[in-house]
Amino acid sequence: MRAAILTLFPAMVEAVLSESILGRARNQGILDAFAVDIRAYSDNKHHQADDYPFGGGPGMVMMPQPIFDAFADVEKRMGKAHRIYLSPKGKTFDQETAQRLSRLDNLVFLCGHYEGVDQRVLDHLIDEEISIGDYVLTGGEIPALAVLDSVARLIPGVLGSDQSAEDESFSSGLLEYPQYTRPADFRGLKVPDILLSGHHANIERWRREQALEITRRLRPDLLK
Amino acid sequence: MRAAILTLFPAMVEAVLSESILGRARNQGILDAFAVDIRAYSDNKHHQADDYPFGGGPGMVMMPQPIFDAFADVEKRMGKAHRIYLSPKGKTFDQETAQRLSRLDNLVFLCGHYEGVDQRVLDHLIDEEISIGDYVLTGGEIPALAVLDSVARLIPGVLGSDQSAEDESFSSGLLEYPQYTRPADFRGLKVPDILLSGHHANIERWRREQALEITRRLRPDLLK
Repeated sequence: MRAAILTLFPAMVEAVLSESILGRARNQGILDAFAVDIRAYSDNKHHQADDYPFGGGPGMVMMPQPIFDAFADVEKRMGKAHRIYLSPKGKTFDQETAQRLSRLDNLVFLCGHYEGVDQRVLDHLIDEEISIGDYVLTGGEIPALAVLDSVARLIPGVLGSDQSAEDESFSSGLLEYPQYTRPADFRGLKVPDILLSGHHANIERWRREQALEITRRLRPDLLK
Repeated sequence: MRAAILTLFPAMVEAVLSESILGRARNQGILDAFAVDIRAYSDNKHHQADDYPFGGGPGMVMMPQPIFDAFADVEKRMGKAHRIYLSPKGKTFDQETAQRLSRLDNLVFLCGHYEGVDQRVLDHLIDEEISIGDYVLTGGEIPALAVLDSVARLIPGVLGSDQSAEDESFSSGLLEYPQYTRPADFRGLKVPDILLSGHHANIERWRREQALEITRRLRPDLLK
């Protein structure tokens, strides 16, 4: 998968792309993800990327020219991509959308800032608007990274074989059972005896009961 | 506000905290936000921070000792804090939660990785578990940054006076009307005439109609 993130803050995006699971996937050549500096495409000599809104009102709007030219250049390099704009107006992101996007070859994320981007960008360039939840952020960078992280971990090879088992547990529709690691007695706080018993069938049953009970208490909607 | 993010990936978190609006708020002294390296608190000579789960199963679990000691040290510096763990088990984050958290003085975010953290951490240290949405991520860093960004922008002074007006528009319960900036004719794509008319009452009416129509089409649930 190739993924470009068009942003006014490329250093911040690059820092996240080069660490953790995303960075490992990049180093392994499974994910070719990179930040693209929108400002570098501005044909204005001050590299201006935003301007006042027509019709008045507070804030600044991101100009069409640098964004149109950034998309054209990125797709010249990577080929035609599925183009996503992160926005409170978008469809709320969920695991099903993550699955769908993980099957695509080329993704481009556009990150808005200020009061948003010129509507001509959204009308003529964007395939899909995505929201990561009902809360307001200062820009699209963190949402783009959330979507990409969630999508990338579904690509075969990105997670180790151990960790990919986690998916099965999530798709079972239950929240996770409690986990414990060493020491068995940490400053007087003890691990449940059953986990130290070595009886695998009993441990399985206990974990299943815990997962059911936690899901019933915290997210009864998932049990439907 | 003081905010600490406890993480295994401090460089990635610091990069985000030092840019964009969060970075500006930090430079202005309005927000004292910093990353804390959990691994630095490990009393294991290899700075180990995770271990195998008791009872078997895939993946690794974050150990209690480095996390307990990191919390103790951070709160010795910043004072007692509201302690948040980012988790799919948490209550789904929304704008109301952002408002509530923005009135607190000290926040500490714990970012999980691998199969999660030892349950004794959650039982004895954490005040609140928060989920940013129904999708799976590889770790808690991006969710912690999403929550902090959303909370920080509500603190007086973080956004310029111009931009804070945006809140009123969001709390009106409608999605934003379309925005346009220069040029009025971009490669043949034109700005709606009304925005160039100079008739402010007509522009206001048009924007209100657009916001209503967009909200009706994309998020009818917000109109209730």
